[in-house]
Amino acid sequence: MKKKVYVIGIGPGAYEEMTIRAVRAMESCEVIIGYTVYVDLVKEQFPGKTFLTTPMTKEVERCEMALREAWEGRTTAMICSGDAGVYGMAGLMHEIRKERGYLEVEIEVVPGITAATAGAAILGAPLIHDFAVISLSDLLTPWEKIEERLRSAAKGDFAICLYNPSSRKRKDYLRRACEILLEYQSPDTVCGYVRQIARDGQEKHVTTLGRLKETGTDMFTTVFIGNSQTRVIGEAMVTPRGYRYEKED
Amino acid sequence: MKKKVYVIGIGPGAYEEMTIRAVRAMESCEVIIGYTVYVDLVKEQFPGKTFLTTPMTKEVERCEMALREAWEGRTTAMICSGDAGVYGMAGLMHEIRKERGYLEVEIEVVPGITAATAGAAILGAPLIHDFAVISLSDLLTPWEKIEERLRSAAKGDFAICLYNPSSRKRKDYLRRACEILLEYQSPDTVCGYVRQIARDGQEKHVTTLGRLKETGTDMFTTVFIGNSQTRVIGEAMVTPRGYRYEKED
Repeated sequence: MKKKVYVIGIGPGAYEEMTIRAVRAMESCEVIIGYTVYVDLVKEQFPGKTFLTTPMTKEVERCEMALREAWEGRTTAMICSGDAGVYGMAGLMHEIRKERGYLEVEIEVVPGITAATAGAAILGAPLIHDFAVISLSDLLTPWEKIEERLRSAAKGDFAICLYNPSSRKRKDYLRRACEILLEYQSPDTVCGYVRQIARDGQEKHVTTLGRLKETGTDMFTTVFIGNSQTRVIGEAMVTPRGYRYEKED
Repeated sequence: MKKKVYVIGIGPGAYEEMTIRAVRAMESCEVIIGYTVYVDLVKEQFPGKTFLTTPMTKEVERCEMALREAWEGRTTAMICSGDAGVYGMAGLMHEIRKERGYLEVEIEVVPGITAATAGAAILGAPLIHDFAVISLSDLLTPWEKIEERLRSAAKGDFAICLYNPSSRKRKDYLRRACEILLEYQSPDTVCGYVRQIARDGQEKHVTTLGRLKETGTDMFTTVFIGNSQTRVIGEAMVTPRGYRYEKED
């Protein structure tokens, strides 16, 4: 029998945001592994499975656990919130598989809805054109590198989606990011943010870059910064793609 | 009764790449509207619906058609390949709704798996860290703007995903893009591309930036350019996120 680990993006939270493929893959597994919070999100929908969890920051151990389970013959799902390939476990699984010699175990990555597009759908259409995705977490990335990417994205007039805009330890990171962007972009640039995407207590806000700088967000928030063309239409944050149509003045 | 248009991302192609939410939304609609090719992809799965199509470049008419159907009382789905908010119809729907005065019609955007994350999953994990998404189509965007974004993304050391890398009329655009990136990035930069994601004839290729420049792609291809850290692990294209683990030997 083939030894197999699926690395599955379960989407932003709600069961119905999972793809049919992700559901089928999880149903085919004996073991489901993930960060405690994400396992709790799906546990009810997949009765009869063995669930294994590790806390946050134990990502390496979590990958080793998944590969060991699969290697011992139990088809295993490693679940990630959002998409497994966007700040998820898909990369580390490939690294650990090679480093620990689990070459008999096949890895299949099953994509999911990432916070960038889930949040964009709630706000309107902020990412309809070219965009950049940047995480403000400096846990694994030096802040200088993050700053350089913010500058490059602003210079290129990309719409920008920020993951991990702040946390208890990084309270002022969003403010620092906004200050950098304000060197290149107008304070009137349309911005938005969404808290608890597809979960209880979901909130959306449309604002400006000037005001975003003064806004407190948390680690459950995804932030969107418009490009020079982004505007508010009704209550929606929309980056026009440039279609031409007759306007009724 | 509420008048409603869903703008739905159906994912890259295969039915099972749709989310449960997208399937349920389509089941709740009387009318399903889209570009001919995408309607053909889903027709079989949704019997009993009224299907309306318009050809490519008739996006404005397609949005007007959807809003008119909804306004007349038929709940309507406007379907897009990938995600409705990434080079999709979500933005134009908001524009046309306002411009044509269909304010009674509610728009709900249902996100889908976009080619960036679907293609990434097939290649390994090229977009695991900060990335930029750029379309090489100059149908609605001046080439100079595209060039500026390529330069900015390369300077920021983003992993890059290119949509619409070429078409019959734009045969040499991918080559021109690679030439720009090569001003900043090594010809050994790991790259990959996927044709016909989640459709019959799916193909994946891992290569280098130097070789990508000489590669002919078509409009059904999505291209991935690594950042300075991206490497090949086994057969996978992986951008490490920076997790630390003990290496053996």
